[in-house]
Amino acid sequence: MNFITFTETKLRDFTYSVFKKMGCSDAHATLAADVLIRSNLRGIDSHGVARLSGYVRLWEKKTINATPNIKIVHETPTTATVDGDGGLGLVVAPFAMQVAMEKAEKYGSGWVAVKNSNHFGIAGYHALMAVEKDMIGISMTNASPLVAPTYANERLLGTNPMCYAFPAGKYPAVIVDMATAAAANGKLEIAQRANKAIPDGWVQDANGQQSLDPNELKNGGSLLPLGSDKDHGSHKGYGLSATVDILSAVLSGANYGPWVPPFVAFLEPPTDPVGEGIGHFLGAMRVDGFRPAADFKSHLDNWIARFKNAKTVDPTKKVIVPGEPEHDFEQERKLSGIPIIDVVVNDLNELAAKLEIEGL
Amino acid sequence: MNFITFTETKLRDFTYSVFKKMGCSDAHATLAADVLIRSNLRGIDSHGVARLSGYVRLWEKKTINATPNIKIVHETPTTATVDGDGGLGLVVAPFAMQVAMEKAEKYGSGWVAVKNSNHFGIAGYHALMAVEKDMIGISMTNASPLVAPTYANERLLGTNPMCYAFPAGKYPAVIVDMATAAAANGKLEIAQRANKAIPDGWVQDANGQQSLDPNELKNGGSLLPLGSDKDHGSHKGYGLSATVDILSAVLSGANYGPWVPPFVAFLEPPTDPVGEGIGHFLGAMRVDGFRPAADFKSHLDNWIARFKNAKTVDPTKKVIVPGEPEHDFEQERKLSGIPIIDVVVNDLNELAAKLEIEGL
Repeated sequence: MNFITFTETKLRDFTYSVFKKMGCSDAHATLAADVLIRSNLRGIDSHGVARLSGYVRLWEKKTINATPNIKIVHETPTTATVDGDGGLGLVVAPFAMQVAMEKAEKYGSGWVAVKNSNHFGIAGYHALMAVEKDMIGISMTNASPLVAPTYANERLLGTNPMCYAFPAGKYPAVIVDMATAAAANGKLEIAQRANKAIPDGWVQDANGQQSLDPNELKNGGSLLPLGSDKDHGSHKGYGLSATVDILSAVLSGANYGPWVPPFVAFLEPPTDPVGEGIGHFLGAMRVDGFRPAADFKSHLDNWIARFKNAKTVDPTKKVIVPGEPEHDFEQERKLSGIPIIDVVVNDLNELAAKLEIEGL
Repeated sequence: MNFITFTETKLRDFTYSVFKKMGCSDAHATLAADVLIRSNLRGIDSHGVARLSGYVRLWEKKTINATPNIKIVHETPTTATVDGDGGLGLVVAPFAMQVAMEKAEKYGSGWVAVKNSNHFGIAGYHALMAVEKDMIGISMTNASPLVAPTYANERLLGTNPMCYAFPAGKYPAVIVDMATAAAANGKLEIAQRANKAIPDGWVQDANGQQSLDPNELKNGGSLLPLGSDKDHGSHKGYGLSATVDILSAVLSGANYGPWVPPFVAFLEPPTDPVGEGIGHFLGAMRVDGFRPAADFKSHLDNWIARFKNAKTVDPTKKVIVPGEPEHDFEQERKLSGIPIIDVVVNDLNELAAKLEIEGL
């Protein structure tokens, strides 16, 4: 495995060009590129530019609409449902978060369910929009089915991430951004490339038996919910994933459970949809709707300091505050660039050739 | 182990009498009894009448105020902070949920952080208040520290439950009500009584090593977050628990992390509090703030039916919809009564003798 390091600007310009070539407006191409580049900056490479050619294939298949008319279709002072018109989740979700934040600005909180959307990138991007305005940000999305609920032998839920982000004072924001599966698919792909066994409790095979084979999903197996098995609380991971699915899709009118359309162009969506596209759920609450923002931030700083300085089992492994590793990556990569694995660079250069734009 | 079965009415009258004897108002005694009895009805016996003598001891110690002046101390149209004045969480949390629901009625959603409270019983009770009004109910609370975050060798978080409840149509509500630890303390107590080893991944010993001994907490060990270890996602369980702690206490002005006061009278609270009492967070969103309630309910029914009829690994173990077992318990116990284990009955009769009220 070799990595090639690019400047943030180089990668951003390339990504913008791809979205422009798809027919996105300037504003949408800029925003969509920002979501992907921020993901790479924050070290979440599975959700960065590596996704570009997948988005293009879905656009070629007309699953993604490059010129969506994103609009509010139902609302109260603090709630709304947004129809993403089949657009990139990368632009639909920030639109919805903006709506949530405007409602929060006026009434203290705002909550937006989204239907008819697509993959929205990292959940943390959207939640962080709220943090910048001294709000608590919440974002979640459902996803194509890969996870078997406790006792099930079929894939009924996505890895359905949930994210909560809180503004701190002198420390970076606390950002809990997590898939509700024991391990996300990206970790299986790393094991596949390295030809290594995975830990027990991540997947089950086509017969519902636990397996250490990272290729099990290709053979009809399923990911397992956070908790892995009943004894270790997999019903809780399943419950969290169900919560994300219901808030994102049953509430908005998107597809849910096994009806969520696939993120890859080579698989066909179910022929009996129960809603439109995939769904998200976004929320914002003004911190000063509860107590003065300065008080909240100074107590959150105290919380962070206490956890960072906790007594540890192993002196070489400190307790990590949620969001700290991604923040550290962002500081470092902004300075020294973004390393991209060679297979992804090759894939992006093939994409560039196909789209007749300048390669990396 | 022997069980004695009581009618709901008998147990409710007894519980009411205990709270009255503590000096609670009629309304508070009735409400607090309802929270505990509902817990027993729903099969969550660890949070029912078994808690009564613990509440009385905390009241004797003046940690619980039987005649609190519960009030809103900060608010916007859709957010508020409530000061519980040291009251029973069993009455403070329903007050706060009522505030959230009134805000939701008017503006679509309502969110209330609570400080200066005590143990609030089962999270599901409060969330279900919203469901009865066709709202989505959210409830969470922090709790005295028993859980070690990933890599830590000290107890910094409670089992911090979170609950999401959704109104369905022909089926019972979907209620995800879960501790964010791999296993709650009640499960350890069951293993202690049976003198049995517990599964790996539930606790670590005083040196931070995993242990199968259910008595480990008494020897300086800690519970582990949902996920159990880093490989299996314990950082996610830790992140969820942190989310509950921040929303419940950093936002409200209650104690957080290791500063949360103990639920038992024989332990002293920290001498350097960072807030007041323990904290909760409650929310309500009108379903029809997003789409017509009938549409939501019929799609949630479809979701439930699909999951109930999922293909299973073992034909004798069906996929369970979150909240279904508790609903089934409630139907059955309303008819045939509530079985209480003899040690609890003896404890309650001793309590009755001490308080000079009629025993069970």
